[in-house]
Amino acid sequence: MQNIVERLLNGDRRALARMVTLIESETPQVQHYLAELHQHAGKAHIIGVTGSPGAGKSTLVTQLVRELRKREHKVGVIAVDPTSPFTGGAILGDRIRMMELAGDPNVFIRSMASRGSLGGLAASTRDVVRAMDAASYDPIIIETVGTGQAEVEVMRTAQTVLVVCAPGMGDEVQAIKAGILEIADIFVVSKMDRPGADQTVAELAMLLSLDQNRRQAQWRIPIIKTSALKAQGLNQLADAIQQHGNYLRESGMLAQRAQRQVRSEIQTLILHGVSNALKAQVSEEEWNALIEEVTARQRNPYSVAQELLERIGLHRPSDK
Amino acid sequence: MQNIVERLLNGDRRALARMVTLIESETPQVQHYLAELHQHAGKAHIIGVTGSPGAGKSTLVTQLVRELRKREHKVGVIAVDPTSPFTGGAILGDRIRMMELAGDPNVFIRSMASRGSLGGLAASTRDVVRAMDAASYDPIIIETVGTGQAEVEVMRTAQTVLVVCAPGMGDEVQAIKAGILEIADIFVVSKMDRPGADQTVAELAMLLSLDQNRRQAQWRIPIIKTSALKAQGLNQLADAIQQHGNYLRESGMLAQRAQRQVRSEIQTLILHGVSNALKAQVSEEEWNALIEEVTARQRNPYSVAQELLERIGLHRPSDK
Repeated sequence: MQNIVERLLNGDRRALARMVTLIESETPQVQHYLAELHQHAGKAHIIGVTGSPGAGKSTLVTQLVRELRKREHKVGVIAVDPTSPFTGGAILGDRIRMMELAGDPNVFIRSMASRGSLGGLAASTRDVVRAMDAASYDPIIIETVGTGQAEVEVMRTAQTVLVVCAPGMGDEVQAIKAGILEIADIFVVSKMDRPGADQTVAELAMLLSLDQNRRQAQWRIPIIKTSALKAQGLNQLADAIQQHGNYLRESGMLAQRAQRQVRSEIQTLILHGVSNALKAQVSEEEWNALIEEVTARQRNPYSVAQELLERIGLHRPSDK
Repeated sequence: MQNIVERLLNGDRRALARMVTLIESETPQVQHYLAELHQHAGKAHIIGVTGSPGAGKSTLVTQLVRELRKREHKVGVIAVDPTSPFTGGAILGDRIRMMELAGDPNVFIRSMASRGSLGGLAASTRDVVRAMDAASYDPIIIETVGTGQAEVEVMRTAQTVLVVCAPGMGDEVQAIKAGILEIADIFVVSKMDRPGADQTVAELAMLLSLDQNRRQAQWRIPIIKTSALKAQGLNQLADAIQQHGNYLRESGMLAQRAQRQVRSEIQTLILHGVSNALKAQVSEEEWNALIEEVTARQRNPYSVAQELLERIGLHRPSDK
């Protein structure tokens, strides 16, 4: 029997599915597998798709996958829901629609929901990308349900971020102002057949023209109209994604971003290690007792932190 | 010559000013002082004031301080600017207006701007609160310039959070939806003499009535109209703040929040310690070399993180 890593690398879908489950369950030994997979990853173009609920992201992703399949790509999709595992009927419906693609052996779809921490979901998503990447899926699409802080966190893994807006939602462009603009590489106005689509495009163009940083950037964010009804705009969208990928490679941005991500990943892993060491050393009862002493002013937070650092074995830095 | 801590505890303003400077500059020995000050802190009511730029926060704070002085409180004010140190003329103007209060020996005002990390500013603010608290300032008002993530972070130190809206700013209520609602304890509609004030009040009331969590909470958020021009509403505002303080004490929420804050502070201090240990062990050159090896797939992030954890001395948890 072959090792799970070898089977995954040889394109065994069940091995990949199993690996994703191991990642999600945070089995300790999964790091050994991921360390091996890391050697074989780094080839895929990672595309993020975000936007407010109701913007039509899942439908867009479904059609984008079809377009990419025409171009003979082997496509991975990760649908990330930071809030809840499949509570909303609408979301479930969308995902079921997406599952129609799953009959295709060259499409691999996986949903992920938040179990623990926000940072945990971003880390798991990164690891699932790594597994799909090693299994030769390229591109890999990460779709999130909303536009909150958790989604922005998850989107950091992506190389090309699509922000999807539907016309006539009123707050759409307003919502974009609130932080998502910095991470957008391509704007998609979905449901172009709806009234108000041109106005949404105009508002987005205005928003971009007002943004000093964006005006100075080399990459000019395209605004692409799509229609799921008429299957329009998908060709242009797939082209724009590819152009952005080329831009990232040629400008050296891809390498820069990869370096930033590696640094951030190592730091996250270290903090995770510290957090585990603390959990192993300090029981919940002891935490409560320590907190009680500090709130009662019998101890202070600085000495408690120092004591815990020593307990987990940390060398003191050159602080006399 | 008395020790700086003793002088601060005896009400020496210059000692307090010096302590704040030491906190801001992150002098290592300041933790020894803060550990002592912690024993004497914990008495002050900590009030946060937030809201969009232009909402009239600084003017409101100035008038609130006057009202609190009538009530014979010794008031501390920390004006926090996460974005930049005094760049905007308007902000500078506001702060100068506030400085008129500074002639009063029972008012202590200090501005703080972000130097390094976002988390760093929140930690420094907490330490400055601790110093003012030990110096018997009560209440202590923390004012932030905006309503972004950094401001929300800073606001966690406050016990009673005022969210200030000016009528006729259009996006005001919209902006509140985006995350600030959860931290609001009192709404203030400033500039009540302007047209649209009643509408803003009605919109806020509507917003509150829609919020399931808020409807179930024991504390019903009051909406208070104030006028800086006519010096109106300050009496009601000061009363509402005091009522919220009483509510926190009587409901046990104050103790709960204090415990949560202590835990979060200890964790932050531990992570800070780890970060310092890493800086002492790993030079920037070595970081770059490690990242280079990982992006070149010669090494993987998991083994690098493990190696660095061992270098800083961390015990391995029970991971076989």
